Amino acid sequence: MSDERNIYLHDIPLPEAWEAFTAALQQAGLWGPLAAEQVPVADALGRVTAAPVWARHSAPHYHASAMDGYAVRARDTLGATETAPVLLHEGTPESAERPAQAVNTGHPLPLWADAVIMIEHVQPLPDGALAIRGAVAPWQHVRPLGEDMVATELVLPANHVLRPVDLGAAAGCGHAALAVRRRPRVAILATGSELVPPGEALQPGDVVEYNTIVLAAQITGWGGLPERLPPVPDDPAAIRAAAEAAAPHADLVLINAGSSAGSEDYTAAVVRDCGELLVHGIAVRPGHPVVMGMLHAGERRVPVIGVPGYPVSAALTGEIFVKPLLERWLGRPADPPPSIEGELTRKVLSPTGDDEYLRVTVGKVGERVLVTPLGRGAGVISSLVRADGLVRIPRFSEGHNAGDRVLVQLYRSPATLDQTALIIGSHDLTLDLLAQFLAERHPGYRLVSGHVGSLGGLIALRRGHAHLAGCHLLDVESGDYNVSYVRQYVPGRAIRLVTLVEREQGLILPPGNPKGIRGIADLAREGVRYTNRQRGAGTRLLFDHLLAGAGLTPDQIQGYDSEQITHLAVAAAVKSGQADAGMGVLAAARALELDFIPLGMERYDLALPVEYGDVPPVAATLALLEDAAFRAAVAALPGYSIARMGQIAAEIRPEGAGDEA
Amino acid sequence: MSDERNIYLHDIPLPEAWEAFTAALQQAGLWGPLAAEQVPVADALGRVTAAPVWARHSAPHYHASAMDGYAVRARDTLGATETAPVLLHEGTPESAERPAQAVNTGHPLPLWADAVIMIEHVQPLPDGALAIRGAVAPWQHVRPLGEDMVATELVLPANHVLRPVDLGAAAGCGHAALAVRRRPRVAILATGSELVPPGEALQPGDVVEYNTIVLAAQITGWGGLPERLPPVPDDPAAIRAAAEAAAPHADLVLINAGSSAGSEDYTAAVVRDCGELLVHGIAVRPGHPVVMGMLHAGERRVPVIGVPGYPVSAALTGEIFVKPLLERWLGRPADPPPSIEGELTRKVLSPTGDDEYLRVTVGKVGERVLVTPLGRGAGVISSLVRADGLVRIPRFSEGHNAGDRVLVQLYRSPATLDQTALIIGSHDLTLDLLAQFLAERHPGYRLVSGHVGSLGGLIALRRGHAHLAGCHLLDVESGDYNVSYVRQYVPGRAIRLVTLVEREQGLILPPGNPKGIRGIADLAREGVRYTNRQRGAGTRLLFDHLLAGAGLTPDQIQGYDSEQITHLAVAAAVKSGQADAGMGVLAAARALELDFIPLGMERYDLALPVEYGDVPPVAATLALLEDAAFRAAVAALPGYSIARMGQIAAEIRPEGAGDEA
Repeated sequence: MSDERNIYLHDIPLPEAWEAFTAALQQAGLWGPLAAEQVPVADALGRVTAAPVWARHSAPHYHASAMDGYAVRARDTLGATETAPVLLHEGTPESAERPAQAVNTGHPLPLWADAVIMIEHVQPLPDGALAIRGAVAPWQHVRPLGEDMVATELVLPANHVLRPVDLGAAAGCGHAALAVRRRPRVAILATGSELVPPGEALQPGDVVEYNTIVLAAQITGWGGLPERLPPVPDDPAAIRAAAEAAAPHADLVLINAGSSAGSEDYTAAVVRDCGELLVHGIAVRPGHPVVMGMLHAGERRVPVIGVPGYPVSAALTGEIFVKPLLERWLGRPADPPPSIEGELTRKVLSPTGDDEYLRVTVGKVGERVLVTPLGRGAGVISSLVRADGLVRIPRFSEGHNAGDRVLVQLYRSPATLDQTALIIGSHDLTLDLLAQFLAERHPGYRLVSGHVGSLGGLIALRRGHAHLAGCHLLDVESGDYNVSYVRQYVPGRAIRLVTLVEREQGLILPPGNPKGIRGIADLAREGVRYTNRQRGAGTRLLFDHLLAGAGLTPDQIQGYDSEQITHLAVAAAVKSGQADAGMGVLAAARALELDFIPLGMERYDLALPVEYGDVPPVAATLALLEDAAFRAAVAALPGYSIARMGQIAAEIRPEGAGDEA
Repeated sequence: MSDERNIYLHDIPLPEAWEAFTAALQQAGLWGPLAAEQVPVADALGRVTAAPVWARHSAPHYHASAMDGYAVRARDTLGATETAPVLLHEGTPESAERPAQAVNTGHPLPLWADAVIMIEHVQPLPDGALAIRGAVAPWQHVRPLGEDMVATELVLPANHVLRPVDLGAAAGCGHAALAVRRRPRVAILATGSELVPPGEALQPGDVVEYNTIVLAAQITGWGGLPERLPPVPDDPAAIRAAAEAAAPHADLVLINAGSSAGSEDYTAAVVRDCGELLVHGIAVRPGHPVVMGMLHAGERRVPVIGVPGYPVSAALTGEIFVKPLLERWLGRPADPPPSIEGELTRKVLSPTGDDEYLRVTVGKVGERVLVTPLGRGAGVISSLVRADGLVRIPRFSEGHNAGDRVLVQLYRSPATLDQTALIIGSHDLTLDLLAQFLAERHPGYRLVSGHVGSLGGLIALRRGHAHLAGCHLLDVESGDYNVSYVRQYVPGRAIRLVTLVEREQGLILPPGNPKGIRGIADLAREGVRYTNRQRGAGTRLLFDHLLAGAGLTPDQIQGYDSEQITHLAVAAAVKSGQADAGMGVLAAARALELDFIPLGMERYDLALPVEYGDVPPVAATLALLEDAAFRAAVAALPGYSIARMGQIAAEIRPEGAGDEA
């Protein structure tokens, strides 16, 4: 068994890995467009033309009337004026001196006619004659043969992704079917004894199998035909059997997970045993334990990629390796993603040996485009959900400093940046609700929140990194909230403090309070592990204040140095047994069914530089504070009061201008 | 019957029409998102969330090892160094003083452990102990419960178009299925006795039915479920029966054509008789005879749009009216198209009463973004195929002057503009081949050609409107081609003349040459109708030269003032009987199976300002002149010689610099 698994994982640079893989594909005759297939033109949307489309016949294929009216000979109308009408008669040159024939739009012109007079310009007389009061030029109101397309003309090139109007043009010049590239068939095999389908009850160690859902959806979007195979356990024989069964029918096989070099990682060995192992490990982040090889299915060679198990690695392996392969097979132009240049809000260190793909959010505050790195954990799929784009940090780069200009490959249209309100600061559950209501009330608008604590939010405002900051900073001396902190941390700007909510803060405890904690003082007891919030969090400042009030110092609190960045993270730490107590809002305790000891109500304000009040998504966000349904949804959260929601708590003016409360 | 059709067509402004329509939808309770339906998460790509997605469970839902290694208590590792290793033993706190338990990535941490040591950092000793030479911090290499998502957290908002990673996140927090908006069902009814399916043999008056293909593909792309109904003839009873049969099962009915007020236009009457006619005629170009109304299907009200028959009008009616309706029903954010500002290359007059949607091509020459209006005929679907975007000219505007800055809503990604080579000038069939080979050899690259004649191309070069100009201008005095014209029309620039082809020019005649034309002199005969090329076309200059040589003047040639802008258009005019002769290349005559009298070979050059030679799509285009397959394809065209293809015919330098031939 050890022979099966102990395949050395050796990270090689991305370009080398790609070259080894494509060289093998070339050798196998697989590095070019797939064969063509004929599909009815009505079914060809989104497919890629495998050959140029030439006009089979002209369009129109006859001289067509472009109006409802009468077909005439232009020369018969010469001399007609308002005062001296010319009289025409329905008929042909054989039956009338100046013939006219009624035609509707699209009707063929009679062979003898060369123009059309609009029906509005023809006056039928009682005796049956048709009076016209203006001459027409030859070919007026006629769509001549070939006006749109002339037989033999190039209508669409090869390698063209077919759009609705392309289907119309192809049909209009005589094509009932089109030659398009066959869709690449991609077999996706999930492996792992720990996998369970989404929605099932979970035991510790179970992992929800969704990587193949993500990969299959990516492949669909890129024009391939994915097939999700039934998952197989961590058994090399089973994996081998499944890969061998899939290869004959597939253009590409993806084996998800088991691509590293652990005791249950069999992918590399299976690839080696079923064909040829080309690459095991690529110096790319996230995603490095990638396997590449060729499966042998009789005479056929079938490329295989071992996709890492971490969901971010899996999704990016799709983007980096599977997408260009499908584009090559489809002859589909590499679709350049929209990109934008922006300013990094934080320093980013990157290992020099790796190509790194950094997930970022992108926001626009005033005219500045701000690029903020997201968490880099490869297991955090929600970071890809929240990402607005990727910044590529190439090999040999050590990263970037805050303020550096970087190029972002966007996942969203750049136009959406103007529809995004950025709020940075303290986390509160009602921000999720605010984001949700904004998306419902104003489809297209987004509220993007960054959780860096109350002080961090004010600092972000000062730096111009956000439209709004959420804060709940108790001024111990005045007993008021936020005002003195705004004056200190955001000097020189006019700031409006708008109250979002008042909320109950307290100690979050395991169900049943097994350690019998009744208040702050009990946190200093031997064997009680506390979990704290990050520096700059209002909850942490409040905790410090309460500690001091109880005559305690931080070094008496075990776990004081731990840092969670949201209320829910505190609750999760308590729920999991990582800590015996933490501080946060009642709603977080309730959400995870934990105990709670209230310590008091506090005010949570939104700090708004007044000049952003008119930015449309910001104005729409603030308008929600008056929205009855939003207020009701917040009021329904345990421990929240909406009594002051929407009130202006203070208008803070730059030095010397004087404030208003 | 007259009662059925004579419904007055009254164009009202677009905003008024839309307001009348949406007011009726509102009254019927149809102006909001459709109901939700549950779909398996794996099938939800591209669907729109009908409700927020909250995390059902945390992810991970337990503390998971982030590495292959050993689970330990961090405090047991304190003090370990390179020289003073700490010894651990496999086991639990019950069985070992310093316990360690082997774990793989993703395994749950034992309850007693709080950190993981990577396997590379653990040295198994012969006696079974595990030596470690460095301490670990608590929670190192652990993915704590909720690291990705915490139960009850907002994962995706409502009204969100689901992407692959969204499916992963939803599955990862416990959703096997998602509530998404039902897809709107759109019944599409083609009407018209003249309609035939694509690919069939055609009689004059037959019209290929492809509008419903275009509309159905548009609706698919916008998230709807189109149903193309069998076409019905121009019979009001049949149309009414089909509409009444479709309405009960549809959210929207589209009736294509018959929406104007001609003798066979029944759509407005059918809508009136089956429900309520709201709008008949909208002041929008192209597209004005649009019908809007509500069909009554028992208690249900079903909106109906009568879509004009001209294909450009039909496609734009889809974009302008159907798309926003579907977006509303799906709660789907109005997807703002990419847009770009550019400079109009030509004056555009627009009727003040209408909202006009102008199709344009967009190209980038140097740093200038150039916007060129395409033909405005509503019947020319190929103009939509060639369009890079739309310029909206609102009501009350009279249009724009050349050089005006206009905003273009792009059909393509702005990034594709850098992959486009622009050639303006004389039309030649080999340009189609060149475009085709470029798309095949370099997926993503495009050669966009504008046909304005040889002189027009040189003027475009002078104005900086193109990378290349195609020209075949005979200098009567020198007998050479192009050089003197380049010097005259593009002064002050270094221009390289690269020969594309030599080609046979001659008279294109109907099959069998019924008028017995043997040369230029015969064109002056009574009853011989000639069709000419546009002013500035090299072929027209050649014709003038030959005319003079035959001692003739233009006023002796019937049809001298007619203007066709391509060789194929000349051939089409002859083919259709519109003219008895025209001048053009042999290949055009052959393409439409016409007779041809050769008048001589001429040289067709590409004029290249030397600074554009390095623009990648331009360089790729020029490289094709050395491509064996391209050369073979041109050589196979009748009347073409590739003997000089790719040769530099001349290097023309700015005044004073001296030329090279």
